Amino acid sequence: MSENSLTNIYVISDSAGDTAIKLAHATMSQFPDNNFRVFRKNFIQKLDALETVLTNAKKRDAIIIFTMIDKELNRFVHSFCETNSLFHFDLMSPVVEEMERRTNTAAKREIGAQHHLNENYFKRIKAIEFAAKYDDGRDPKGFLKADVVILGVSRTSKTPLSFLLAQKNLKVANLPIVPQATIPDEIWKVDPKKIIGLTNDPEVLNKFRVERMRSYGLDDDTLYSNMDNILQELEFADELYKKIGCPVINVAQRSIEETAAIILEKLGVEDKTFQ
Amino acid sequence: MSENSLTNIYVISDSAGDTAIKLAHATMSQFPDNNFRVFRKNFIQKLDALETVLTNAKKRDAIIIFTMIDKELNRFVHSFCETNSLFHFDLMSPVVEEMERRTNTAAKREIGAQHHLNENYFKRIKAIEFAAKYDDGRDPKGFLKADVVILGVSRTSKTPLSFLLAQKNLKVANLPIVPQATIPDEIWKVDPKKIIGLTNDPEVLNKFRVERMRSYGLDDDTLYSNMDNILQELEFADELYKKIGCPVINVAQRSIEETAAIILEKLGVEDKTFQ
Repeated sequence: MSENSLTNIYVISDSAGDTAIKLAHATMSQFPDNNFRVFRKNFIQKLDALETVLTNAKKRDAIIIFTMIDKELNRFVHSFCETNSLFHFDLMSPVVEEMERRTNTAAKREIGAQHHLNENYFKRIKAIEFAAKYDDGRDPKGFLKADVVILGVSRTSKTPLSFLLAQKNLKVANLPIVPQATIPDEIWKVDPKKIIGLTNDPEVLNKFRVERMRSYGLDDDTLYSNMDNILQELEFADELYKKIGCPVINVAQRSIEETAAIILEKLGVEDKTFQ
Repeated sequence: MSENSLTNIYVISDSAGDTAIKLAHATMSQFPDNNFRVFRKNFIQKLDALETVLTNAKKRDAIIIFTMIDKELNRFVHSFCETNSLFHFDLMSPVVEEMERRTNTAAKREIGAQHHLNENYFKRIKAIEFAAKYDDGRDPKGFLKADVVILGVSRTSKTPLSFLLAQKNLKVANLPIVPQATIPDEIWKVDPKKIIGLTNDPEVLNKFRVERMRSYGLDDDTLYSNMDNILQELEFADELYKKIGCPVINVAQRSIEETAAIILEKLGVEDKTFQ
């Protein structure tokens, strides 16, 4: 095995290249002992720019992952890579061509069509602005307008989770749950089917809090990190979630992507990315 | 052509399915006259669950886009689809297998490896929390800590753009630019190479503002929507950006994805998603 070998990956796209970069990322994570260098070449829309990129990729014997909707540019990548024996993976063509066969219509072949400033795009922008406005219980009015209300004890990634769901066009408001605070009246007016309670393992919370205390230069054996206190907090949240009657998710060992997928499932909410 | 025909797409993944759903989205946007129904089947990690999904997909003669890192599950999709003549596109295997050939090592074949709670993941979570904390000029201290400072007149999507860049592991603070406001001192202490000024076409701003006034039930011919006023605002911003010496991006007709890609390029900042 060639340990610590370096693999160059060229991600080439006529648009923002988000799909191809995700694939590169997923692949790299399967080879943790390998070193990678990713060359991200976005908005390549001219033949001469494409040729320059491919010539450099060839010098590095790179793996090429590409999305090119323009037929001429797409063919150029294929022919260049075949002539020069470069590995290349065309993400777009197989499914687009299958669609053309099925519908007996030609694809629009329009660059960056998924980034068009259409109704769907503006819905998403609004959802992200909604998440910013109603993050961290900033304004209780948000709970009544939200598609999803997230309640959570500290360090359950409420904010990043809210923005991830916002990217799926869901309006999300979140509220930190601490025993000292009173729960805004609005929460009791929200359909419990729209509410999710986040909890965590006490050991995980303790670890976070000890670290936080240390980073503040404080004694790490404070009330904040005290295990009894954490258990009380979790119990308070647990009882609140039961009273509300909402589903509960333990986020320990879960990424926000995984938690988001579970939330959509639990709430029976569709991923509205394309609606 | 079969207008208004319905195409069923099954996006099947043993993990969150984010890569495959992006591809489905990009494809659909190339066929705007076609109707699609997307069945998103995430976290399919057992053979019997997979068989159920595929059996239903077969009934709908669906297009299958899948990411399955487990070899047995992956092979099952291939053999089921070949037996039943179902179109299927395997996103993961070609690049993963090429990597195995190149490095002469086996892929970890670990489900959801890219969602592992590693250092990179926690950096991203922190970047999103940073964006929430320092959104909308909430705390000027953020400007000095940020990787990128975004200045922008109203309706330039500062907030969604900040969160998109945060997902690329960049710490972003943003500040709305209005002629009446004083610019916080901190801005002048930031390296201009880290600052981006957003502007917009006056016609676009006027349209937004007229709509906003109407949605408030107000007369749409107010100062806020007044063209002279808009031109003054844009001029103020323009002069400020010149004084700072920062690059300027006009976001009219640009999606936040496109603007984000331009920002990374202009600032010479790498997409830090994998660092």
